[in-house]
Amino acid sequence: MPDTLEDVRKVAPALARYTTRVLQGDVWRRPQLSGRDRALLTLSVLIARGQSEQTPSYLALALDHGVKPSEISGMIAHLAFYSGWGNAMAAATVASGVFEQRGIDAGQLSSAAMPAALDSVAEARRHAIVQRKFGDVAPGLVQLTKDVLFGDLWLQPELSPRDRCLVTICSVIATAQTAQLGFYLNRAMDNGVSRAELSELMTHVAFYSGWSSVYTALAVAKEVFETRPD
Amino acid sequence: MPDTLEDVRKVAPALARYTTRVLQGDVWRRPQLSGRDRALLTLSVLIARGQSEQTPSYLALALDHGVKPSEISGMIAHLAFYSGWGNAMAAATVASGVFEQRGIDAGQLSSAAMPAALDSVAEARRHAIVQRKFGDVAPGLVQLTKDVLFGDLWLQPELSPRDRCLVTICSVIATAQTAQLGFYLNRAMDNGVSRAELSELMTHVAFYSGWSSVYTALAVAKEVFETRPD
Amino acid sequence: MPDTLEDVRKVAPALARYTTRVLQGDVWRRPQLSGRDRALLTLSVLIARGQSEQTPSYLALALDHGVKPSEISGMIAHLAFYSGWGNAMAAATVASGVFEQRGIDAGQLSSAAMPAALDSVAEARRHAIVQRKFGDVAPGLVQLTKDVLFGDLWLQPELSPRDRCLVTICSVIATAQTAQLGFYLNRAMDNGVSRAELSELMTHVAFYSGWSSVYTALAVAKEVFETRPD
Repeated sequence: MPDTLEDVRKVAPALARYTTRVLQGDVWRRPQLSGRDRALLTLSVLIARGQSEQTPSYLALALDHGVKPSEISGMIAHLAFYSGWGNAMAAATVASGVFEQRGIDAGQLSSAAMPAALDSVAEARRHAIVQRKFGDVAPGLVQLTKDVLFGDLWLQPELSPRDRCLVTICSVIATAQTAQLGFYLNRAMDNGVSRAELSELMTHVAFYSGWSSVYTALAVAKEVFETRPD
Repeated sequence: MPDTLEDVRKVAPALARYTTRVLQGDVWRRPQLSGRDRALLTLSVLIARGQSEQTPSYLALALDHGVKPSEISGMIAHLAFYSGWGNAMAAATVASGVFEQRGIDAGQLSSAAMPAALDSVAEARRHAIVQRKFGDVAPGLVQLTKDVLFGDLWLQPELSPRDRCLVTICSVIATAQTAQLGFYLNRAMDNGVSRAELSELMTHVAFYSGWSSVYTALAVAKEVFETRPD
Repeated sequence: MPDTLEDVRKVAPALARYTTRVLQGDVWRRPQLSGRDRALLTLSVLIARGQSEQTPSYLALALDHGVKPSEISGMIAHLAFYSGWGNAMAAATVASGVFEQRGIDAGQLSSAAMPAALDSVAEARRHAIVQRKFGDVAPGLVQLTKDVLFGDLWLQPELSPRDRCLVTICSVIATAQTAQLGFYLNRAMDNGVSRAELSELMTHVAFYSGWSSVYTALAVAKEVFETRPD
């Protein structure tokens, strides 16, 4: 936990106490999600909400927990699409300082992994649904969603499809876009994320995106959990 | 009203005019809410939306209107849970500068008041409802909500339960979490906040959280007002 | 496109690539909206989301694309009401620096145009609906909406009613206030904005406010498009 708690204690001792006892002392140590995943979720929320003041210390924490520089790089590009270019550009500026401090160079930003394989049946089904609903309303965006979002961004090797799902879910919750949540919860489960992990994601994210945003999300999660056969 | 209006006038004279005539000259003087309450509401919106640039001058204004340092401290801890740790940490940093300027020390941050008494019947009913709805979806969060949120945070003496309701309502409106609003409007009325005060809260907050966010909230308020017997 | 892409490339090469190929190379050049309109939309989203770090370069870009200083001034005052005073005050501070650099003085901030004419029949109908719904819930706000918002702000000559509609729609999407969107989409079409322009607005704004926020908005746009006779 990277905040300068001494300063916080001088102003909001109760906040400092909850930080050490509950957030650091309990939540971050719960075994249902790794520290690496928790760092990824936290960064996603901070970037999606534009909290650039908090971002440097959590970027450092993420690197300490084993999130790779290439994954951070991929996450920033991913969030440009989901939470807006401005947030991602600001995050890139912040990350640039942290990467320089740690001597991380361009060679560490690309992944040696193969691009993810496109599940062309599922993608054709997704596109057909969206085309039918919104093809007349916003043909340009529907085409960009097919060509650039799912046909390019989601396949880039820097971040795994599983992690892209987690990052997207955090962005959707943090920006109050409840209507988009069901699709990505299902996509996460299609990519192997378990109910227990999603449940713990909600618990963790409550602290960073706020209790209210997560309680709104729980209603969607409940419906997804109850309607999936697996 | 603490903004440097001279600078604003050079760029957006209409905005400066609305600030002096409408916001300062009318809204802040309306008798339905005290200046103290208005300062509390305004600060809650600013912190919940992460507007740390505006926060220092409104912190100073709040202190001038009689909001106690211990109440500001309690509000920051409260908003950590409702609008996210990042916003609260940023607010604590800003408050630290203001408190230092004014010579406010640690002794003024704790309240001599007794902790609020837990209404154990109402809390048991609340927990039972949430447990039934979300106990399977996010057991960790449901437990933390019982133990830490309502069993600890809401009872802390720094901020009265009535003020905690107002702060929470502002946070919920400012972060577009409409689905959570009804519960907290009812809770506010259970804690003695009148319809007239809630109505004026909506009017005041429209200026700081935006007209759209409050019109969305009015639909919920209307339903709560019409369904309560009192 | 005003970002320092070299810095971004060092941290998030994929983001830099999407910026040059997709955003600059395709989206900004699409003929369905002028560069001037795209600059107006982008600025509205940035101000509504409080992204003051990105605002200076987009203010400069807007001026380069022919957005007038008086329009920027009018837009900032307009967004004070729709996305909150804090965001507008922060935007005014940022604009002050850009205006000074460019030698823009007070004389260029007012418009020689006549105030827009109030469509008193439509406004009376709007007020009657709102009065019936919310007149008891928040009489103060309903009155301010009539007197100040629609009876004053919307008539100011700095920004045309058509542009005020576009700015408001961006603010509503960027702050996740979906329930207010239908009214302003209809108002835009009443002011001569075409389906094709609104469709392209959605495409453009997806990049700045995030894909999720626009997909939520598309459902509303679809309904408006299908129910209007024209």
